[in-house]
Amino acid sequence: MGTGNTAGDTFGQILEAAKELFYEKGYENATTREITDRAGITKAAMYYHFRNKQEILYTICLQAADELIGNMREAIAASREPGGDLRGQMRRILLSYANTYLKNKIFNKILLHDIEYLDEDKKRVILDKEKENVHQLRGFLEGLIERGVLRPVNPTVMTFSLISTLHWLFFWYREGGPLTLEQVIDEIVDLFLFGSAAPQPPAG
Amino acid sequence: MGTGNTAGDTFGQILEAAKELFYEKGYENATTREITDRAGITKAAMYYHFRNKQEILYTICLQAADELIGNMREAIAASREPGGDLRGQMRRILLSYANTYLKNKIFNKILLHDIEYLDEDKKRVILDKEKENVHQLRGFLEGLIERGVLRPVNPTVMTFSLISTLHWLFFWYREGGPLTLEQVIDEIVDLFLFGSAAPQPPAG
Repeated sequence: MGTGNTAGDTFGQILEAAKELFYEKGYENATTREITDRAGITKAAMYYHFRNKQEILYTICLQAADELIGNMREAIAASREPGGDLRGQMRRILLSYANTYLKNKIFNKILLHDIEYLDEDKKRVILDKEKENVHQLRGFLEGLIERGVLRPVNPTVMTFSLISTLHWLFFWYREGGPLTLEQVIDEIVDLFLFGSAAPQPPAG
Repeated sequence: MGTGNTAGDTFGQILEAAKELFYEKGYENATTREITDRAGITKAAMYYHFRNKQEILYTICLQAADELIGNMREAIAASREPGGDLRGQMRRILLSYANTYLKNKIFNKILLHDIEYLDEDKKRVILDKEKENVHQLRGFLEGLIERGVLRPVNPTVMTFSLISTLHWLFFWYREGGPLTLEQVIDEIVDLFLFGSAAPQPPAG
């Protein structure tokens, strides 16, 4: 995703190099020297943009978290337009989340592992953004329950079940495997909307 | 959970102390000295049972993984007995898994984080046991699909969705909160079996 924007590119180059290195070696093992080498810049150029390695980590987390929140907000807003069917709405929201999430592989690994290296106040900001995403999705589901589109399930349980299911794709879903991401999301949507129990033959 | 069995207790005491310390400080930050201090034993006694700190980590992982596998096997076997209803079967399996999993908090954290500190061959053994658990559950669901109890959902997607939903309880479920674990599991079972879409009024 090169932007061709050379003026602001150093900032982006540092982040890209750091993302790759954190993903490959872990935050703790990657040095600022390796980051500047891979980005092809001087240490001075790096320190112009970031105070230290932790600030790079924090910026990566912030960007990914904001992208997740923004994309979910858009998908939910689009789903509120009249005329959409429930299945299509859920599909759009979950696909948007899964796409953003899988694209930000490094963020996923960081959330599970490297977030411990952030100072408490920075860690709190990232975790609060995660929470905001949970609240967005739960609010959307609560609206569907209020309007009688969904039965009165527990919205917290459904929200966390959906989010965990999407996050888990990171561990098992591989592009080029037997199912496309769209097919997996369709399965998930149908599972959460219509369940898995076979329809019962009418009694009597 | 003191056993009162003093003869074999050193082994168990080391594991308990290490579990606590790994959970509190992370594997890397916990020293063998802290483990022996907390267990109230000598270094010599520790090295009689374990070659090094990694072997303690490995033993903790093995025990938890074997307990998860064993309990799921039992719950699945019990579900195969005649006369059980689908809801009750699923409930028993998921509750058993969730209980075992939440009990082994340290194992959860290790699987997400400290497993990287195991040598490749040891890591492989633990990950293979995780896989065995996935296979057990998927095999059970495939049986239900074959017998027409479940509609032909994708068993892989359903298996990972269920497992991720149970694992995620670690992040949000708290004892003493608004829902008991049994209530949460009931919600999850109903969500995965019957979905969340409100029944449609008959057309016409």
